[in-house]
Amino acid sequence: MTALITEQQGCVIRVTLNRPEQRNALNRASIEELETVLTAAENDPQVRALLIRGAGGNFCAGGDLSDMLEAQQAYSDGNPNAFAELSRRFGRLLQAMERSRLVIVCAIEGVAMGGGVGLVCASDISIAAPGAHFSLPETRLGLLPAQIAPFLNSRIGPGQTRRLALGGEKLDAAEALHIGLVHQLAVSAEELDRGIDALLANIRRSAPSALAATKALIRDSIGIAPAEQDAVLDAAAGKFSAAVLGDEGREGALAFLEKRQPEWAEQ
Amino acid sequence: MTALITEQQGCVIRVTLNRPEQRNALNRASIEELETVLTAAENDPQVRALLIRGAGGNFCAGGDLSDMLEAQQAYSDGNPNAFAELSRRFGRLLQAMERSRLVIVCAIEGVAMGGGVGLVCASDISIAAPGAHFSLPETRLGLLPAQIAPFLNSRIGPGQTRRLALGGEKLDAAEALHIGLVHQLAVSAEELDRGIDALLANIRRSAPSALAATKALIRDSIGIAPAEQDAVLDAAAGKFSAAVLGDEGREGALAFLEKRQPEWAEQ
Amino acid sequence: MTALITEQQGCVIRVTLNRPEQRNALNRASIEELETVLTAAENDPQVRALLIRGAGGNFCAGGDLSDMLEAQQAYSDGNPNAFAELSRRFGRLLQAMERSRLVIVCAIEGVAMGGGVGLVCASDISIAAPGAHFSLPETRLGLLPAQIAPFLNSRIGPGQTRRLALGGEKLDAAEALHIGLVHQLAVSAEELDRGIDALLANIRRSAPSALAATKALIRDSIGIAPAEQDAVLDAAAGKFSAAVLGDEGREGALAFLEKRQPEWAEQ
Repeated sequence: MTALITEQQGCVIRVTLNRPEQRNALNRASIEELETVLTAAENDPQVRALLIRGAGGNFCAGGDLSDMLEAQQAYSDGNPNAFAELSRRFGRLLQAMERSRLVIVCAIEGVAMGGGVGLVCASDISIAAPGAHFSLPETRLGLLPAQIAPFLNSRIGPGQTRRLALGGEKLDAAEALHIGLVHQLAVSAEELDRGIDALLANIRRSAPSALAATKALIRDSIGIAPAEQDAVLDAAAGKFSAAVLGDEGREGALAFLEKRQPEWAEQ
Repeated sequence: MTALITEQQGCVIRVTLNRPEQRNALNRASIEELETVLTAAENDPQVRALLIRGAGGNFCAGGDLSDMLEAQQAYSDGNPNAFAELSRRFGRLLQAMERSRLVIVCAIEGVAMGGGVGLVCASDISIAAPGAHFSLPETRLGLLPAQIAPFLNSRIGPGQTRRLALGGEKLDAAEALHIGLVHQLAVSAEELDRGIDALLANIRRSAPSALAATKALIRDSIGIAPAEQDAVLDAAAGKFSAAVLGDEGREGALAFLEKRQPEWAEQ
Repeated sequence: MTALITEQQGCVIRVTLNRPEQRNALNRASIEELETVLTAAENDPQVRALLIRGAGGNFCAGGDLSDMLEAQQAYSDGNPNAFAELSRRFGRLLQAMERSRLVIVCAIEGVAMGGGVGLVCASDISIAAPGAHFSLPETRLGLLPAQIAPFLNSRIGPGQTRRLALGGEKLDAAEALHIGLVHQLAVSAEELDRGIDALLANIRRSAPSALAATKALIRDSIGIAPAEQDAVLDAAAGKFSAAVLGDEGREGALAFLEKRQPEWAEQ
């Protein structure tokens, strides 16, 4: 790993984007390593959650200039799709995050720009320090937030997406909380670690398969037409039944009746 | 009625979930009686709105344990679908609320958990007392919010649904207001009745068929693809014309011109 | 122009709804002139944005009574579709705003009712003065917000749309900000012009084609099913590539490297 630091704490993998001098801008290595970590974590039955944050007081300044220069070179060398491939590669990471069985948490300090905002939108839960700020600078550079747009729509709705992507404003942490780009604010920068721990503590008490099934259920329940509602709810009832009758459901019921923590709970 | 108390006040049916010792947890009787009340109210042309609240200072603690035990017995007795049927039964109530021609208002004090949050999401308008709190405890029990997920997505968007269902947080009333799970906060617990009355007063001044047509219109306008927009707006224009030319539209225009309350207005 | 005043300032067309004695209620002339201005602005390559506000301290009181009387006359004269045509004509304006390549900004003071709320929802960004207030009075008149409903769903989500359209409340500016009906509040009525200028300054620094492509991208990314996500992101990657390799992308990169403003930037 050249761009990330990872550390496992029980059921949580903590990932730090570790290119602080580039404000953790995403280069080819960052993206490939994030995909590697995500895949490995998904294949480890002990892991329930992934925490992503940035080193050096910033979250992520978006795409790294070096990637653009590399794509320019490839384009000049005869690959007409070099820039489309660069763009799409980042979108595939966001899709993998959205489809992942893991609960993905972003903790944001300082800068979250462009692709950094994309990571936040593809995550499940986000918490920010008071000094965090968020912007989509693409249109000022003659570009578009191409892979990010669907994830923005899903996270903050098209009404706020249009404003953020077209208005070019820099949102502070309170405004990001207001529009749902982040879900929680830490009281202070110093308290961010404590806020993260409290948030992860809830996940440590939740059943791994139930978390994964719930994440998939929400994804499958987005934008369903009225005519599809019965089919979606029928399938969901089947998943409920499978959960009740499965190992976790039985352990959960027993633990509830015996007034104890279930086996999966981590302190 | 064993689980509900109902009272009619003009065009409003007030329903109280009345199992205070179980914090109004929903059992088979609650759900069947809610469906009965809803159907009867829809068939009464005098009724425009349904108010749902809980007895004893709580709204609703979700599904009752007795239902789970009953389903377990049925499963043991050879019905492999007992838990799926239990789950689906609650989803059908939420669908009936969403499809109802009536304006459904929830007033929340104290606990709203699991299925209680589902009732809030399937309603049209909700108002909370300052001490209300909201949570989805399913994943801590090894279960999923199976029938609730589409209604959460519709009410608060997938970005907040993921956070609430996966993060397992308990939201207080102000946070529920922030994410749109509730629409209004009463100034104090004592002022909840006054807030409900003010909210219902608006509905008492609104035309019954216009309310029903507007509710259906909004439902039919969710998530329409750009290619469908013309058809939806053409149909909506036809409904507008029918409303103008119908009894309510003519009475509304006359009352406006004569500077008087229309016939349907209740004090 | 009998109902509007327009003024061009660089890349921005400022449109004032100018029927202050009718609180800028929309009549046939307002709608036709808005469409004319919008079409002309879209065809002028120098124009990037349209600002809509109202004269005399109000934004827009919705549909004008004169239009209803005119439709009543046409209906009496034998046109059974007179009211449907009246309704649909307004919806076509909202569609044209949503589909427009231009960034459309609404600045709201005083009243925004019915169709006035529709204009806000079809715009991209909105800013309000503290005294602004918003309501959908249709159901009190026996009518429905027929053409507005899909634009409300898109802007504030179905959860807030149901509340606003069925509850009949009048929202103040802070509440409109809370639910995302407006994006910014000016500090004071006196500061509204300054707020508008700051907002437009961002757009003056953004590339015209990139803004148009971003607006289309967001629209095409709404409510996509999981099975469509790859196709949408593939297409978006192609648009990113076209932007990078186009005039704006090259100028944007050069300006960035040369630490200067790009050619398209207006002071």
